[in-house]
Amino acid sequence: MSVSSLSELRALCTDLPAGSEAAEHEARARQDMLTKPQGSLGRLEELAIWLSRWQGTARPELDKVSVLVFAGSHGVTARGVSAFPAEVTAQMVANFANGGAAINQLARSVGATLKVVPLDVERPTADFTLAPAMDEREFLQAVSAGMDAVEPDTQVLCLGEMGIGNTTVAAAVAAALFGGDGASWVGRGTGVDDEGLQRKAGAVDDGLARHAGILGDPLMVLASLGGRELAAMFGASLQARRNNIPVLLDGFVSTAACAPLAQLAPNGLAHAKAAHASAEAGHRRLLDALDLKPLLDFQMRLGEASGACLAVGLLRSALACHDGMASFAEAGVSEK
Amino acid sequence: MSVSSLSELRALCTDLPAGSEAAEHEARARQDMLTKPQGSLGRLEELAIWLSRWQGTARPELDKVSVLVFAGSHGVTARGVSAFPAEVTAQMVANFANGGAAINQLARSVGATLKVVPLDVERPTADFTLAPAMDEREFLQAVSAGMDAVEPDTQVLCLGEMGIGNTTVAAAVAAALFGGDGASWVGRGTGVDDEGLQRKAGAVDDGLARHAGILGDPLMVLASLGGRELAAMFGASLQARRNNIPVLLDGFVSTAACAPLAQLAPNGLAHAKAAHASAEAGHRRLLDALDLKPLLDFQMRLGEASGACLAVGLLRSALACHDGMASFAEAGVSEK
Repeated sequence: MSVSSLSELRALCTDLPAGSEAAEHEARARQDMLTKPQGSLGRLEELAIWLSRWQGTARPELDKVSVLVFAGSHGVTARGVSAFPAEVTAQMVANFANGGAAINQLARSVGATLKVVPLDVERPTADFTLAPAMDEREFLQAVSAGMDAVEPDTQVLCLGEMGIGNTTVAAAVAAALFGGDGASWVGRGTGVDDEGLQRKAGAVDDGLARHAGILGDPLMVLASLGGRELAAMFGASLQARRNNIPVLLDGFVSTAACAPLAQLAPNGLAHAKAAHASAEAGHRRLLDALDLKPLLDFQMRLGEASGACLAVGLLRSALACHDGMASFAEAGVSEK
Repeated sequence: MSVSSLSELRALCTDLPAGSEAAEHEARARQDMLTKPQGSLGRLEELAIWLSRWQGTARPELDKVSVLVFAGSHGVTARGVSAFPAEVTAQMVANFANGGAAINQLARSVGATLKVVPLDVERPTADFTLAPAMDEREFLQAVSAGMDAVEPDTQVLCLGEMGIGNTTVAAAVAAALFGGDGASWVGRGTGVDDEGLQRKAGAVDDGLARHAGILGDPLMVLASLGGRELAAMFGASLQARRNNIPVLLDGFVSTAACAPLAQLAPNGLAHAKAAHASAEAGHRRLLDALDLKPLLDFQMRLGEASGACLAVGLLRSALACHDGMASFAEAGVSEK
């Protein structure tokens, strides 16, 4: 769908379905009959119950798991905020197409389908220290592209990105949404040195100062300090919610992109789990701010939905137990 | 193989192969050429490199992943240390055979082969507060059963157990090996109440007092305070090491059972990873004592090798990246 105005988008974000309480209840009751001490499968039980709520059935399935990777280019790279040159974004999009990147292997290893959506990669957004990264039209186009990329019969959606410079962008968005200065949100990204880290913090601080007037408006924050791939991930997470599709967030950039939804609606990210805590410094702080508890802590810092995809295998194991285990009565096992 | 004396077993434990440094080196070099910032796949890189060292090749495989679950019965259950009756051990062995337990589903979901080895389940070990749990012959039989269960062409081995009462046994072994009283090692196991927790601590303290003379000898600790399934897991971890087979430890009981190997030989558990930190209170303390960093923290507390098995999917994803990714040169991606 094409969203034509910020007010239309705002309205979509405040009218969100809540998933099925009945399915969640039924799934929880099922877990409690299975041949194990109650609760002893820990987060595997939580995941089966969460999938049940959002798929609207006590027997959720994972036949259609989709990985969406959005790519965008960032004007702020002119400030020397990345260890890699900006052209790597387009080179990596080609690498995705040729099947050579980490996410190609990870998606295959967990039985997920990968779709890569480049968003005007040859045309960077404006440097947010000088101007809004996107004007309203550009922003809504990117959000709409994200919404359109979500197929409604998806059973779990993994959201990731590629974009040289975008951990600086994510830090700016996180700082704008949750407070704190640049230094408190930036990290080494793909591997900047100490001076690069200072440049990142300085760019964020300059961006916050330039856009001081809109920091209370989550959508304007995403338009002014974000980037096309962040806007698209936001749109995809919104569209997923509108279709009751459970979402696995990836790292710092993916989480920052979807964070506005939590500010625009109560429980706006209830359909999302944090797949992992990345090694990027600001991610754990952001997860805490959103009250999201990561499934994995693998010190990954790649993006590309790599962490989200890794967690899909855990969901499959959760459903294997949920579906296949015998009850105490069926197995003739004594309860306590 | 059949180990006929403690001194023979002790000799086996001190003459351990160290894995292939050359394969580890080659795998590390490969990781550094792949199209990602160096180190950005975090523990996925560590896992691929670890598998390389122990499989002795820079291109390790996971075609044969084995899950061994040993079951045993414990005299100490007479002290009221479990929330479940002792007969549940045999009932769960039947449930394993019928395919209804969590581990059946988990093994299938990660493409692993499950073998369950009951060890005289109908004949509990002695109550360790009154006598040694096993005499030398019984202990060596159980260790040998564990060694025999390991097929030499296994590429990864998951080690787990079933045995009502065995978190008390594991706490006794951990306390004997690493110090501390019962209260500092026991937890709620399958779900005891506060009084049950006190009974567990009391049983451990009584066991430590009764066997005070042998606490400096890790093998005698395992014989006197352990149980058959613990002795078998110890034997399996030893046999795995002798065959350079990488091992995934499961929860508190599995880790406690294999801990003597770390005390008998320097780097005795270098071939093992802690698959997860369980919700059982003593497990994290034990992992810290062994300098093992768990791969998952899923608040699981089931045993059965459930946590170990869950981690197999992570290994598969690690190898998918290690094997399938393009290098910077192959993909034409600029390095920093």
